[in-house]
This record gives sequence, structure tokens and C-alpha cells, in this order.
Amino acid sequence: MTEDELARINASFDAQAMMTTLGATIADISRGQVVIEAPILPGSLQQQGFGHAGLTFSIGDSAAGYAALTTMAPENEVVTAEIKINLLAPARGDYLRATGRVIKPGKRLVVVSSEVHAITGSDAVLIAVLQGTMVPVPR
Amino acid sequence: MTEDELARINASFDAQAMMTTLGATIADISRGQVVIEAPILPGSLQQQGFGHAGLTFSIGDSAAGYAALTTMAPENEVVTAEIKINLLAPARGDYLRATGRVIKPGKRLVVVSSEVHAITGSDAVLIAVLQGTMVPVPR
Amino acid sequence: MTEDELARINASFDAQAMMTTLGATIADISRGQVVIEAPILPGSLQQQGFGHAGLTFSIGDSAAGYAALTTMAPENEVVTAEIKINLLAPARGDYLRATGRVIKPGKRLVVVSSEVHAITGSDAVLIAVLQGTMVPVPR
Amino acid sequence: MTEDELARINASFDAQAMMTTLGATIADISRGQVVIEAPILPGSLQQQGFGHAGLTFSIGDSAAGYAALTTMAPENEVVTAEIKINLLAPARGDYLRATGRVIKPGKRLVVVSSEVHAITGSDAVLIAVLQGTMVPVPR
Repeated sequence: MTEDELARINASFDAQAMMTTLGATIADISRGQVVIEAPILPGSLQQQGFGHAGLTFSIGDSAAGYAALTTMAPENEVVTAEIKINLLAPARGDYLRATGRVIKPGKRLVVVSSEVHAITGSDAVLIAVLQGTMVPVPR
Repeated sequence: MTEDELARINASFDAQAMMTTLGATIADISRGQVVIEAPILPGSLQQQGFGHAGLTFSIGDSAAGYAALTTMAPENEVVTAEIKINLLAPARGDYLRATGRVIKPGKRLVVVSSEVHAITGSDAVLIAVLQGTMVPVPR
Repeated sequence: MTEDELARINASFDAQAMMTTLGATIADISRGQVVIEAPILPGSLQQQGFGHAGLTFSIGDSAAGYAALTTMAPENEVVTAEIKINLLAPARGDYLRATGRVIKPGKRLVVVSSEVHAITGSDAVLIAVLQGTMVPVPR
Repeated sequence: MTEDELARINASFDAQAMMTTLGATIADISRGQVVIEAPILPGSLQQQGFGHAGLTFSIGDSAAGYAALTTMAPENEVVTAEIKINLLAPARGDYLRATGRVIKPGKRLVVVSSEVHAITGSDAVLIAVLQGTMVPVPR
């Protein structure tokens, strides 16, 4: 990844107010893979006191979207066409980590996956898997 | 729906801090259908200035989950096993409205759908459809 | 629908050997909606003696795909980008009927849904719902 | 895997007439992973002469289902609750190979994935990915 490419992705991420609301940050960017981390804020909980599915979805979807963006031409932004999430375990721990990956790049459609882990100390529990389709749109 | 049933769902919803963060409220509850509305808050935007997919997902998922809960025995809470979202149009307008419905009730699995509209004045644009599976869990 | 449009869809369907293998036929075509019916052949069963998920999927997917094709420019064929199926009840009865519908037409992506019913006499039981994305490709 | 466990899975597979229709066979069984292979028969084609999505789905779904069954108690059969497929490339080549894996075992729900490759000589092209939920049912 060039400095320009990294700057483009970081700028797009920083413009997502929702990520700020959730306290999410980009932890790693490489070609075809992006890692996003987020705390489980008091304002991100569901009714049982765990992280809300909307939190898990938001960072899983964003990690997958930015992974797709790393494979797109620089004049593009990325939007989610569709994505499916299977929730495997409650979102509890020190923080959440979403790892988005490109399964199949393409000019019109980019197929992606994402894994979300709940991290407690040195322990990582897989709490969700996502599979979806990202599409390029003009910036 | 009895007063008790309505109170149970409202109490569960009120305990979801994420819904408060997003400004979401329950607009209607009937057997097998729940409507949730949310503004497009400055803190809920994506990088192009529209509502984030995470906002649309969160209210669509919650509406579907509470629709499922209206069909479950009173000792249960509900969690999402899996759900898929197809995003159809940008989330822009006065506010968003998610209508969750039960397609197939069941003791172990409740299959649900949800439609999310963006409302501008008297105009409602369908911006997302969701299809998923809810499961009962002990309260 | 013009005669030309109907002929184009019927010709495409007739070229699908898989539909012949499954005994499937087109029962109805209108703009944005296509109905496909299929018997539950001895060669289409799963291990418990009901119709195989692959049968239900195949006709549900094809009905949705041809519904999408009715909204595409005539120089196009259609392929499935992605589709999700929730199976609700066993595939048993006289025959299956899949009704595919366009939720959102588009130049690059067409979002579709499909319902599959098992028909026994005058009784129709909803056995599966599908939600997916079709894309136009050159013929 | 014990002989009994292998026999149980092979017997269930052999009872699936749909697998016979498609020419599919089990190529490998281990705890949490099952591989199914199928030729692209003349009767399994779509309108452009490639393997039908229904073929790819059927073996991908079955491989994931039997992978789930390897983790279930012996008195159970398995059915698909829901599964989503993203199609990545045309189904063409010498034959197809579906590898189903268990992502998360469970008493009530087993979350699974499946990859389908088209094999041509020593070349394997990923043509589809599936993500779904299997549930145990009494035999």
C-alpha cells in the first residue's frame, strides 16, 4: 500500500461519524485486508448488557468495506450492496476486533468476508462472521 | 397484545443503550410486527454524509427481533442468530422507519423480515430489506 | 410484456437443462414477477424423503432471476450474484411453486426476493423465502 | 471419526436421491469438514452452458450440512435452517468440489461455511462461498 492509498482510506474512515460514535479505529490496513477495533462502550449495549449486534455489524461491515476499497481504483468510494452476519457468541470482553478480507475482487462487485472477535486479555473469541458484496461508487 | 406484553417489550427496548445512542424509538407494536423509528443523527453518518449502514441495520434488526419477541413465550428474551441486509438506496431524509415482521414463528427459530424506509415529508423510500433468524433465550 | 420479451425469457429458461432435470416449468411471467412450478420428483429428494433444499433453491433462484430479467434491457442475460434462503418447512405435497419478485430494479444490480410454496390440493404452505441480488451480463 | 460415524453419514448421503441425480459423491469426511465432488452433467447446466447455480448450491449446502452432522449426537439428522451463497465465477471445468466446514458447533444451531471450487486438471478456481446455519432434527 502506498502512502496515498493509506491516506485515502484513513480519510474516508475519519469521515464516518458513526465510527467515532462507536469509538472504532483502524488497527491495520494491507492490500485486501483491514482490521478495525472498537471498545464496547456503555452506549453500544443491548438489553442483556453485551455489545449490540449493531456494533458488531457496524465494525464488521466497515472492515469488509475498507478491505474492498484497498482493491479498487483510487477514484472510487465503496458502499455495501449486501451483507449477512451470523452471530456466534455474546459481544463481551475488553474490546472487539473486526478483520475484513477480500474473497474476490472485481470491477463491479467485490465479494468480502469479515470475522469479529471479542478480545479479553490475550484471549480472542470469534463472535460473528459476515459475508457480503461491496460495490465501487464515484467519490 | 396485553399491557404486560407491551410493557415487557418496551422494557427490553429501553434497556438497549444502543437504541438510545441512535435516538431510536418504538413507534408501533402488534402481534408479529414492530415499527422502530430513528433520526439520522450527526453521529450516525457514513463518509458520504448519509446514514451509516450500521444505523439502518441496527433498527432493521431490532424491529425484526422485537417482532419475533411478540410471538415468544413471556419468559424469553430474543437474540439474532443471523440476518442479511440488502441496501437499496442512501439513508437520507427526515428520519428512518424500520418495520419488522414475523414470517414464520417457531419454538426454536423465528424467521423474520424487515423493511427500512427513509421518510421525507409524506414520501417513503425503501432503502433496505433484511431477512433473518431470531432465537429465544432465557431472560 | 411483449411477445418478444416473453419469447426471450422462455428461450433462456428452455436452455437451462437443470430446469428440465427437475421437471420445472414457467407458470407465469409478468413485469417484475415470474412463477416457476416443479414436481417433487423421486430424483429430487433428500434423505428424509422430502424435496431437497437444492430443488427448492433452484426454482426459487430461477424465479427471482427471471423476474429480474423482465426488468433488464433486451441485450442482457441474468446471473445470480448472491442469494440467501431461509427454509421454513419440509418440501412435501403435490408440487412446489416459486414466485420471484423484483424489489429494486437497477442497471448494475437488481435486488430480488422469492417465495416457495408447497402445494397440496388447494392448500399452499410457505416453505422457503429467498432474498438476493441479480446482475445483468451480456447474452 | 469412528466406523459407525462414517457409516451413518454415508448412509444419509446415499439416501439423498438429489445427490445421485447430480452425480455427487462424498470425497472426504473428517470431524467438522466434509468434501463432496460432482461432475457438471449435461442435465445440470444453466442457459449459458455452465453449471447451474442450483448444482453449486446443492453440493455446497450438502457439504456444509454433513460437516455439521459430524459434530452432532448420533441420534440426529441435519437440516438447513438458512444458507447464503455468493457466486464468484462460472461453474466450468472437469468437476466441482465443495468443502463444508463447521465454524461454530452447538446443540441447537451449527454455523457452517462452504467453498466450492471448479477443478480443471490441477487447477482449482473458487466459484462460490456459502455461509449458513444447520439444525439437528430427530432421525
